[in-house]
Amino acid sequence: MGPTETGSAPETLASFYRTLEQHDLQPLWPIADQLLTQSPQPATKPWMWRWASVLALAERAGELIAIHEGGDRRVLSLANPGLLGRPFATSTLWGAVQYLNAGEHAPAHRHTPGAIRFILVGDGVYTTVDGDACDMHPGDLVLTPSWNWHDHNSSADEPVVWFDGLDIPTVLALDAVFFENYPDEKLQDVEQEHNRSERLYGGRALLPLGAAEDTHSHSPLLVYRRADIDAALTALLSQGGGPMASLEFVDPTSGRPVMPTMGCEMHRLVPGRRTRPVRRVGSSVVVVYKGAGSSVISGQLFKWNSGDMLAIPSWAIVEHEAAEPTDLFAITDAPVIKAMGLYREEIHETPQHVTRVFS
Amino acid sequence: MGPTETGSAPETLASFYRTLEQHDLQPLWPIADQLLTQSPQPATKPWMWRWASVLALAERAGELIAIHEGGDRRVLSLANPGLLGRPFATSTLWGAVQYLNAGEHAPAHRHTPGAIRFILVGDGVYTTVDGDACDMHPGDLVLTPSWNWHDHNSSADEPVVWFDGLDIPTVLALDAVFFENYPDEKLQDVEQEHNRSERLYGGRALLPLGAAEDTHSHSPLLVYRRADIDAALTALLSQGGGPMASLEFVDPTSGRPVMPTMGCEMHRLVPGRRTRPVRRVGSSVVVVYKGAGSSVISGQLFKWNSGDMLAIPSWAIVEHEAAEPTDLFAITDAPVIKAMGLYREEIHETPQHVTRVFS
Amino acid sequence: MGPTETGSAPETLASFYRTLEQHDLQPLWPIADQLLTQSPQPATKPWMWRWASVLALAERAGELIAIHEGGDRRVLSLANPGLLGRPFATSTLWGAVQYLNAGEHAPAHRHTPGAIRFILVGDGVYTTVDGDACDMHPGDLVLTPSWNWHDHNSSADEPVVWFDGLDIPTVLALDAVFFENYPDEKLQDVEQEHNRSERLYGGRALLPLGAAEDTHSHSPLLVYRRADIDAALTALLSQGGGPMASLEFVDPTSGRPVMPTMGCEMHRLVPGRRTRPVRRVGSSVVVVYKGAGSSVISGQLFKWNSGDMLAIPSWAIVEHEAAEPTDLFAITDAPVIKAMGLYREEIHETPQHVTRVFS
Amino acid sequence: MGPTETGSAPETLASFYRTLEQHDLQPLWPIADQLLTQSPQPATKPWMWRWASVLALAERAGELIAIHEGGDRRVLSLANPGLLGRPFATSTLWGAVQYLNAGEHAPAHRHTPGAIRFILVGDGVYTTVDGDACDMHPGDLVLTPSWNWHDHNSSADEPVVWFDGLDIPTVLALDAVFFENYPDEKLQDVEQEHNRSERLYGGRALLPLGAAEDTHSHSPLLVYRRADIDAALTALLSQGGGPMASLEFVDPTSGRPVMPTMGCEMHRLVPGRRTRPVRRVGSSVVVVYKGAGSSVISGQLFKWNSGDMLAIPSWAIVEHEAAEPTDLFAITDAPVIKAMGLYREEIHETPQHVTRVFS
Repeated sequence: MGPTETGSAPETLASFYRTLEQHDLQPLWPIADQLLTQSPQPATKPWMWRWASVLALAERAGELIAIHEGGDRRVLSLANPGLLGRPFATSTLWGAVQYLNAGEHAPAHRHTPGAIRFILVGDGVYTTVDGDACDMHPGDLVLTPSWNWHDHNSSADEPVVWFDGLDIPTVLALDAVFFENYPDEKLQDVEQEHNRSERLYGGRALLPLGAAEDTHSHSPLLVYRRADIDAALTALLSQGGGPMASLEFVDPTSGRPVMPTMGCEMHRLVPGRRTRPVRRVGSSVVVVYKGAGSSVISGQLFKWNSGDMLAIPSWAIVEHEAAEPTDLFAITDAPVIKAMGLYREEIHETPQHVTRVFS
Repeated sequence: MGPTETGSAPETLASFYRTLEQHDLQPLWPIADQLLTQSPQPATKPWMWRWASVLALAERAGELIAIHEGGDRRVLSLANPGLLGRPFATSTLWGAVQYLNAGEHAPAHRHTPGAIRFILVGDGVYTTVDGDACDMHPGDLVLTPSWNWHDHNSSADEPVVWFDGLDIPTVLALDAVFFENYPDEKLQDVEQEHNRSERLYGGRALLPLGAAEDTHSHSPLLVYRRADIDAALTALLSQGGGPMASLEFVDPTSGRPVMPTMGCEMHRLVPGRRTRPVRRVGSSVVVVYKGAGSSVISGQLFKWNSGDMLAIPSWAIVEHEAAEPTDLFAITDAPVIKAMGLYREEIHETPQHVTRVFS
Repeated sequence: MGPTETGSAPETLASFYRTLEQHDLQPLWPIADQLLTQSPQPATKPWMWRWASVLALAERAGELIAIHEGGDRRVLSLANPGLLGRPFATSTLWGAVQYLNAGEHAPAHRHTPGAIRFILVGDGVYTTVDGDACDMHPGDLVLTPSWNWHDHNSSADEPVVWFDGLDIPTVLALDAVFFENYPDEKLQDVEQEHNRSERLYGGRALLPLGAAEDTHSHSPLLVYRRADIDAALTALLSQGGGPMASLEFVDPTSGRPVMPTMGCEMHRLVPGRRTRPVRRVGSSVVVVYKGAGSSVISGQLFKWNSGDMLAIPSWAIVEHEAAEPTDLFAITDAPVIKAMGLYREEIHETPQHVTRVFS
Repeated sequence: MGPTETGSAPETLASFYRTLEQHDLQPLWPIADQLLTQSPQPATKPWMWRWASVLALAERAGELIAIHEGGDRRVLSLANPGLLGRPFATSTLWGAVQYLNAGEHAPAHRHTPGAIRFILVGDGVYTTVDGDACDMHPGDLVLTPSWNWHDHNSSADEPVVWFDGLDIPTVLALDAVFFENYPDEKLQDVEQEHNRSERLYGGRALLPLGAAEDTHSHSPLLVYRRADIDAALTALLSQGGGPMASLEFVDPTSGRPVMPTMGCEMHRLVPGRRTRPVRRVGSSVVVVYKGAGSSVISGQLFKWNSGDMLAIPSWAIVEHEAAEPTDLFAITDAPVIKAMGLYREEIHETPQHVTRVFS
């Protein structure tokens, strides 16, 4: 018998359930166990996308697919096999690579999902965000927050590839997607001097007088530079001693995550030292910015190299171990989880048994 | 040709897309239009559940289904026909009726989804929340917030029916569901004096000294009384003049919504006066606490009476008109939408054309 | 030799100090001990003003002093003898009694210091605050926050007396006092229906939808009623068991103190039970709303009755003991102290020795 | 006749006022005009201290006064002549110069007033703050926040001079001063690697993961470097175009002022361009870090050079004009004024008439 004992005959119940269905009602008791599980049961699978394949396919897309006016983007999204064909890396996060050929321009549009761009390959590109041209170099993070006009522009001689992180699944789940093409589907006019946000908000704990009193839902700083990230990781690691130093990219006017829907992190691993097993409510997508090593996620071993990308489901136990100096970039839904009062974490004492190797 | 012009032969593209799929990648360009729509395209349909049917079926469940120890609840959930069989009223909200026979007890458990109970029929029941017995009378609102132990207890002579509102779809979408049965699947011990939270936090802008400095993610006040709600609506309506007075149930220590995931509202309608058409990002479930009238939702007319329940999708245009004095209770996902920086609303000048009548 | 050893001859130093003074400089070392004391050394003395005297003198003022247009108020301020003739009850708080004869009107003005009115004697009076007539009855609290127009109006047959609490010393110390008479030094026009703020914000954890999102620096609720205060104290005392139940008057839209500069509290004492000795950073002025008993403040015993008023300096050790059911109203500077990160408190185990009796 | 018309004979009133005084009461009506002024009437005078004099006297103090264990500091405080001999630069701010001879150590203590150190002359010094040795170079800002242990240590060959800014007047006005010498009046043990706070919190919008969730009332970053300040001013000026670029030193975990009681600002002036006349509630102390020019404060002209220090009273109209590239450092009480809801500012169109020249 099920969780609720009934003295009723099965056919009586079946008939009752059919009547319920006709009235657009469902009984809770037969499904309560599947619905309210003892712990999260994400459809998201621990997964990895290999840089070699992703890059080769992005290059192939660069040959096959043109970019035209009309809001187009040459983007390959990470489709987690647990998510039934939906183009999402985890249940709440979109991960993708975007590929721009030398001299290409992706025209301006805006949408309520917010995006981050983490540059992997190439130089000589900028993204214009509400008129502010943000130069993009490898290892930089560039934000195109919710409902900001943005277009991408290459004056490079070589193709450029970056990682796109978006909160699309979350904004979709909230039925809050709006999208708009820029008038005439053109590029935006650009202010003469690039990187306005960096000049205004890029100081080191130094802000324009009064800036912190403005209200806004995302960071007014749109670019975070590799050199600064590297220096911060070096300092943090020298302080903490490892095996891992972790930093968060923040809104300098509030210290809060760059967007209310998505956080950005960078982790530096000390080679040869395994991190303690930890699990957290909330999912993330990890990009190996540089380095090599392995991770165990829910008992499954992933061996990775520079450029590989991983999906980490909510409540999965995670351990990392680098074989060489490694920086891991990650997007997470932690800001949502925490704002909703749903955050938990567990740190375990014993390393996981590896039950399977990803290949 | 599609949004992205390609010079490539269809078979080349088809082959490329198959290769992408094998590598768990998806091209954005063929689906960008469906994914990033100009405005929200909720699967949730405007819908109504009739009290007469719901009550009759709840009573039938009261005959057929027993409640036993083990975390059981006799609950019929509103299953929006747009949501493909999932037992949700809207994409983010769970709505249901719960039915307790005279003298029944629903044993204690806790879960991370938060719940509200809005009492519709019957008296002589209390819900124990973390040891605090909260008496429930018609028109009262009782909270059982995230991860609080709760059981329901009837010493009534008649069955009791209440509306259950939960944030289950949101917490599921965030892969953050935890559930636990109370030790030995019993009822909680109850403090001798009932309604502790009301004594502590139920004052009129009067709090225990220091209370507002405690941090918590939900309201410490667990009960809101019909008499107070009625008085507040009367006062508000006398102030504003109609056609509708709207109040929100709040955490008295912060003025914020009762939970970070779900808001509770009550609206009083002046008979014969139509509200202006408005649409908002975010969905809601409305329960006609008392009264009669009609609503137009996205061009569809719903005629309702006491006890009827409606689903309002995100960005649907909504108008109400009461035929007699009416109070509408509603749960909404507004706290989530606003915390994520996604809130918008539009007030329209012209009433909608009714294109269809719900029957 | 002093705290800084110098090898210098006294006359050399004296000459040096004179030179410093000529250049508007002062050496820290001779005064460091007096300036940076081990603990607060308030000039404020523990003090008491007897209701019998205060009332008699207020009545006498009622005979001698007329109220005219021009911003006048018939107010006797509590002048703490430690404060060198300044009309302040403590170093940060102004306390006073205001006296209005039957039928008198005190014309409208506004000022940046915020005020509270705690009604002691009489009925049939209202204070108009930015057009909203707030009726005043004994035991009610009425706010006239910073820069709100306010006038006082009696249609009573008898004189009315209330306690005025203001943050004047704090606003003066910050050089932030502004004052303005109402045009033509008249009364404000009054909205027909009195007590607008009560209708809008006086619900029990029920707010007008959207109210908590407005920004304001003080409570939009302007009146707190004796019946509600009494009920809240009764409930709180039944919960905690005594010897004292303490509540705070809050802004219902935020749970925070009614003003950023001044908090309002009410304490109910159980007769025969002495409170534990406690000291806090920050001062307060206490008004015995009703009851009789005694307090020990910094070793000094004060025996009080209804209407008596006490000044409690910062960091003074305080104990209360009621001889009959007692309600103590208090204004404090706690919101300032806490906002500045300066709050501390100490609870002591042993009752103080009484070293002096106030008479 | 005064503001309140009385029909009473002067001798009757005089007798009444004497009686009031005997009962520690004061009538408001005779003093209301002086107390509640139309706008702030600060005792603080616009004032200037010349670097040449201050430095010469500090050097003289360096010869005459030894520093010993026991909490000593060789400090000359700016004593505003409006403040009746109190050693305060304005009514809410302490300004001073501190002078440390080569090789001297000022032993550890802590106090609730918070301090900032803005280094003017010399190098090779560090201040230890709760064990963290903070190196100090010219143009750097170092914080020793409320109740943090701190000592100063010179390994320099030359004397070092810095500007001390403290909130002492405010903390005194709140009766909240606590002070404690370090055990045995020694120096603190120092962590081997200096500048821990800089390593942890000195990133450019990059924080240790989780840092922003810690609660604290002041910035955890204790050092702000001249090179960063210079770069931020350059960037800000290039963006805004002048005549003045203004930045604020902030807590990187919140974007808020470095302390709740005191803000720190830096202003860069473009030579030859006069700033618009502005007045604000709240006072400040300005240090000319480098440059030359003049200011008009309440009609009084001050011609300044590097190292000069100015007191700006609340609500004084202020204009600056640089004769050469100029950086002005300032401490302000703006965080207090704003937290108390008392902030106002006025920008005027017309330059002030100079009515007096400071000399």
